[in-house]
Amino acid sequence: MTPKKILVAQGGGPTAVINQSLAGVVLEARKFRGVSRVYGAHHGVSGIVNEDLLDLTQETSHNLEMVANTPSSALGSTRDKPDAKYCHEIFKVLQAHEIGAFFYIGGNDSSDTVRIVSEEAHKAKYPLRCIHIPKTIDNDLVGNDHTPGFPSAARFVAQAFTGVNLDNAALPGVYVGVVMGRHAGFLTAASALGKKFPEDGPHLIYVPERVFDIDKFLADVKATYERLGRCVIAVSEGIHDAKGVPIITKLAEQIEHDAHGNVQLSGTGALADLLCEEIKIKLKIKRVRGDTFGYLQRSFIGCVSDVDQREAREVGEKAVQYAMWGDRSGSVTIQRIGYYSVDYELAPLEAIAGKTRVMEDEFLSECGTNVTDAFRLYLRPLLGSHMPDAYRLRPNAVAKELHKG
Amino acid sequence: MTPKKILVAQGGGPTAVINQSLAGVVLEARKFRGVSRVYGAHHGVSGIVNEDLLDLTQETSHNLEMVANTPSSALGSTRDKPDAKYCHEIFKVLQAHEIGAFFYIGGNDSSDTVRIVSEEAHKAKYPLRCIHIPKTIDNDLVGNDHTPGFPSAARFVAQAFTGVNLDNAALPGVYVGVVMGRHAGFLTAASALGKKFPEDGPHLIYVPERVFDIDKFLADVKATYERLGRCVIAVSEGIHDAKGVPIITKLAEQIEHDAHGNVQLSGTGALADLLCEEIKIKLKIKRVRGDTFGYLQRSFIGCVSDVDQREAREVGEKAVQYAMWGDRSGSVTIQRIGYYSVDYELAPLEAIAGKTRVMEDEFLSECGTNVTDAFRLYLRPLLGSHMPDAYRLRPNAVAKELHKG
Repeated sequence: MTPKKILVAQGGGPTAVINQSLAGVVLEARKFRGVSRVYGAHHGVSGIVNEDLLDLTQETSHNLEMVANTPSSALGSTRDKPDAKYCHEIFKVLQAHEIGAFFYIGGNDSSDTVRIVSEEAHKAKYPLRCIHIPKTIDNDLVGNDHTPGFPSAARFVAQAFTGVNLDNAALPGVYVGVVMGRHAGFLTAASALGKKFPEDGPHLIYVPERVFDIDKFLADVKATYERLGRCVIAVSEGIHDAKGVPIITKLAEQIEHDAHGNVQLSGTGALADLLCEEIKIKLKIKRVRGDTFGYLQRSFIGCVSDVDQREAREVGEKAVQYAMWGDRSGSVTIQRIGYYSVDYELAPLEAIAGKTRVMEDEFLSECGTNVTDAFRLYLRPLLGSHMPDAYRLRPNAVAKELHKG
Repeated sequence: MTPKKILVAQGGGPTAVINQSLAGVVLEARKFRGVSRVYGAHHGVSGIVNEDLLDLTQETSHNLEMVANTPSSALGSTRDKPDAKYCHEIFKVLQAHEIGAFFYIGGNDSSDTVRIVSEEAHKAKYPLRCIHIPKTIDNDLVGNDHTPGFPSAARFVAQAFTGVNLDNAALPGVYVGVVMGRHAGFLTAASALGKKFPEDGPHLIYVPERVFDIDKFLADVKATYERLGRCVIAVSEGIHDAKGVPIITKLAEQIEHDAHGNVQLSGTGALADLLCEEIKIKLKIKRVRGDTFGYLQRSFIGCVSDVDQREAREVGEKAVQYAMWGDRSGSVTIQRIGYYSVDYELAPLEAIAGKTRVMEDEFLSECGTNVTDAFRLYLRPLLGSHMPDAYRLRPNAVAKELHKG
């Protein structure tokens, strides 16, 4: 039986294409004759429990298309991580509004919420189809070739490193760029796709999948700087030592910097600044600069992968199709079936929920500070069309006249 | 007499279009029959004194076009600020290579170098045409409607704020974005062009043209946060108190943060972090995030204004034409003659050299934290074609079922 009313919500960190999935759900659902209402919840699960719902049935298709092209969560998002009680509240609201299908666009926390809500409905013998739609710039959902949102963020990171490498070549020194990623280094590793010539940066890449050793780091930087006269470094915000202690905590303690005891990874330039201070002090290099890419990398409006847009739209569409024609709840996953082509599958919620994928070993080079060609091949098609490219002048030295000797 | 050999160099901070000016000089100069050699100096004036020159006469036009579209200084840049002695060294090298025309693409420090070198040549009765070609993301050259490099950086800043505003609307809190600009607030003010709806951020804009008072700042943030439940703030790195002391220095001293006594404005996230700490502590707001746009804003490869590209190309071309057909040295300036059209003039070097333009009063609103419509009209055409636009869902609330009362 086709559900009469459906509800869609967005959770977790916004991405550049999460509204494509929203538009995919709404436009696809409105094609089904039996569907009488398409609701959206403001600010994810918190909007559901507060009954802060928006009727999208009467939104124009044109405006939905325009919103689809707009980064960040148009319905608003939330950081709430519902427990069993919270999920029960969600279920009660869905029941009160006679919602027959619930779509939640989010990462692995969100998929766990979908799983619990689905179980609640089952226990109450209430007919509810629950579909999790993948989304995360971290690319850390298991069971997926990649996740919507990651390709556009990766495109931003690759283009940013193309630029800062050129900037660093013009005014040489050491440059540290800190990229989002607490447990998975995919986004930081994307910096490697900004590289064209062998001498281009990033020369060193540090991801959370490898233990970060500050002495090894300084030795790496020193070696690169001595070889090239400059060094461009990409660092994941989540780098940690052998015991799992975040480097930002360690460095902050070491130099008595941490006045308020807060260890916050995003929305602060502290890690970049602390690493730069280490390099300046220990290696006596004068020009050392650090940038933290922060929120720019996940919501930048002018740097979206068209491949990412199309796939984010399709996972939304497929979610509705699975709910309408399928016989079970689940999580939509992206499977790579060609170079480059994808197809979609509906995985059991238990297979995705609450699990974290990290970079596969084959993607990281043995030296620990670079990616492999396997990773470059994996990522390139995701970045989309019209990737800008960097060119340089060909060498052709003029003979000296004044200082001939 | 047409100079047989010409030399071009790039100085100061790179921009997204400085290579357009380089290509403009080289391609235009190569059209003149009398020109036998077109040289480029590596790393600006330092490459001249070291005779580190590159022969561009045999570079292909195709590669020059590709380099023109590549951000950052293809010849390399320098932070050297030549004094009279240094300029004499420059002149000696130009003389040894029989250079007849010298083109220097740079900001106001660079124009001063051109002025001194020109005077040296005059004193030595050596025939040398010296042309300064404008370039700076700060937009702080006098005598110009605007300067090449600024429009593309402004495009990046406007697009970045469009994105972070959407992000902040999805996950509400306070967001501080620190933008480059030591004395002139043009680039920070460009954040206002990322705004579409009245409630959009940036809600508060702080530029170096106005005295920054931390208590007033906190009161502004509090008022906005109470009104909208969120607040997006754009801050120039160069904000200072009534005595001209940079705020970064003041805040750092206040909370004993400045372990090494370095006050560096760019390449560190310190100002954003310090302002965020103030907001967290004094206003007791929990979600406060800061980003420093850093080097991304001046060399990002995927966010270049086509208007900026064309004008940067033209100032290079015009420079060569002035040198070949004119009778004096000078600085190429951009004059706005229509909405939107520009023309170019050659100003005396003394009129430009070493002077700093700041934002005109008519561009800043009386409240001190916003720009005027005059500024919006001024900036909009510079941002170029295909500016992405943000859309939102139209409100259409669903009646509550569970919590009807």
